[in-house]
This record gives sequence, structure tokens and C-alpha cells, in this order.
Amino acid sequence: MEKLVEETLTSSYLYRGKIVNVRQDRVRLPDGRTVFREVVEHPGAVAVLALDERAGLVMVRQFRQPAGTVLLEVPAGKLVPGEDPLQCAQRELAEETGLQAKDWEQLAWFYASPGFCDEKIYLYLARGLKPAPQASADEDETVEVITIPLAEAGKMAAGGEIRDAKTLIALQFAALEFEGRLT
Amino acid sequence: MEKLVEETLTSSYLYRGKIVNVRQDRVRLPDGRTVFREVVEHPGAVAVLALDERAGLVMVRQFRQPAGTVLLEVPAGKLVPGEDPLQCAQRELAEETGLQAKDWEQLAWFYASPGFCDEKIYLYLARGLKPAPQASADEDETVEVITIPLAEAGKMAAGGEIRDAKTLIALQFAALEFEGRLT
Repeated sequence: MEKLVEETLTSSYLYRGKIVNVRQDRVRLPDGRTVFREVVEHPGAVAVLALDERAGLVMVRQFRQPAGTVLLEVPAGKLVPGEDPLQCAQRELAEETGLQAKDWEQLAWFYASPGFCDEKIYLYLARGLKPAPQASADEDETVEVITIPLAEAGKMAAGGEIRDAKTLIALQFAALEFEGRLT
Repeated sequence: MEKLVEETLTSSYLYRGKIVNVRQDRVRLPDGRTVFREVVEHPGAVAVLALDERAGLVMVRQFRQPAGTVLLEVPAGKLVPGEDPLQCAQRELAEETGLQAKDWEQLAWFYASPGFCDEKIYLYLARGLKPAPQASADEDETVEVITIPLAEAGKMAAGGEIRDAKTLIALQFAALEFEGRLT
């Protein structure tokens, strides 16, 4: 591994925003040359595979400005700096769907796009769903909640009706998990 | 769907960089209020599930500055503005692995993180591999190429040894595809 490692020489901020910062790192490559790397800093996020007792998957439809359209996704949201990912997942599930879950399990974490961005997404499985007592929506978000049979959602993913990476990963983990193929 | 749509009122650039730009859009929410959305613009990318005739998956190990570590990924790379995704996939496969492929098939495209970024990733299946005649590496990239049995790579994904979203999606598509579960 050592021969691949790049050493950070200097680091400076080019942009500080509401959600992301952009940093420019000067790095020494393994062959000794130095180059600049542009790095987008993101606080990280959670995604929740929320399944009811009939294998219904709780999903949200939401307009996404970067895509310019409405996307069908699993409930998700950004970490507040310093927030525990599980607490964030519980908060986001309640905010977006009005639900809480009895059983929580972390399925995976991954980098959304590690070529340029440090965003980590923590994926949880939530079961034992019931209405959350004091769910308050994020005031900047308008989402529509729909429950879709898990198998149907899997077909939608295969058919190109789901375009969100974390949702594809969640569905594919579910398909493999519940077939016993990951265990 | 209409009740979810946000209307863009104004748009201005806050940062223009080497890989990404950051834009601030003022949008009207469905309820009439206006808010600002920070949007990271990315040129888009490709990822290649390159399989040899023995179901060996060609992967690359590469230091990723945003992650601060070496990650195991499928061959991938950014689109040159205006570039056809298939051509980009062919170029990146050659640059990173020194291989070309006879058969190309687009498996999917998806947004890497549509909450804040417009990056689309186009995923291709490449088969019929052979050495590319004039493969020239990207001079800023140092990658190590390894071929791993597809089934083994799937186990690594399930076991948390693969942390890159596009690679997880590629492997899961492969697992489902080659089990005939998507067809």
C-alpha cells in the first residue's frame, strides 16, 4: 500500500459554504512530484432502510435541486457536525416520515464519491416502525412519503426508476441480506 | 409530483474550481417561501465493471485524498466536458488498467449524492478484455491494478472491505445480474 500513498504538504480553503467547503491540498505523489488536489468537505450523511412488518419499504419522494427533478429515495439526511450517525438516522427518519423504529442496525458505511469529496454515508436498517410522538419536519424540506413492497422497489431499481446511489445500495443490501446471501 | 417541485428564481456562482463549481440557487418552495440551495456542479463520471473470461473482476487500488487512504474500487474517472460516457469509460479503462474491451453495455446511471451535487455516474459492464495498444496513464494518478474473483469481491463488499459507493453498486449489480435476478 505504501507505494500508493500521497503526502499532504499544504492545505488551504478556497470556499466555505453552508453545506460544503472546498479545500486545495498540495500533495507529494509516490514518484516525488507535487500536484494539487481539490477536496470537497461534506459533514456526512445517513440513509435508512426502514421496513415495516409486511416487508414494505418506507421511501420518500423529494425534489432535488442538483438533479432538477423529483427523486425516489430512502429517508436520509446530513449529519449535524459532531452528531452520532445513529442519532442522526433516528432524527431524519422521524423528520421525513413521522416514524420511529424499535430496532436499528448499521448495515454499511461508504464514501459517496471519494475521488473529490469526503462525504461518508452511514446506512441503517430500521425495523419495528411506529409513529414518532413529536415528529417535526425540516422546514426547508417538502417530502412525500410512500411505502412500497421491497420486492417492487428492487424491480424499480433494476428498471432504472431509482437514480440515487445510496438508495440503490440500500436496496441491493436488502436484496442480498434477505436472501441470506451476505451472511 | 407537481406539488413537490421547486422553482429556481436566481442562480449565482460562489466558487469555480478545477473539478467542481459551487452555485447558490434561490428557489421557491411549493408553499411559496423562498430558500437558498447550495449546489455543487461536477462534470460526471464513469465506472467500469470489467470482467475477464474467468469471472475475474479488474479493480484498482488508489490513494484517495478526500478519504486519506487507499481505496479498492472499480476503474473509474471523470468525464471531460462534452465527452460521451462510453468513450470516457473506454479511455479510463485503458488509462487505469491498460486494457480494452470488446463488449460494452451500460448497466445503470445514478446520482452519487443528489442532495447537494449533480454528479451522474454511468456504470458500464466491459467484457472481452485484452491489452490496449496505446494505453497511457493519467500522469496525476498512481494506481495498482488487481484482478479479484467476482465472488470474492462480493464477499469483500459484504464484509466492509470496499467503501466506495460506485464499486458497491457495481458489485451488487453484478451479483444480481449474474444470478439472473435482474432479468
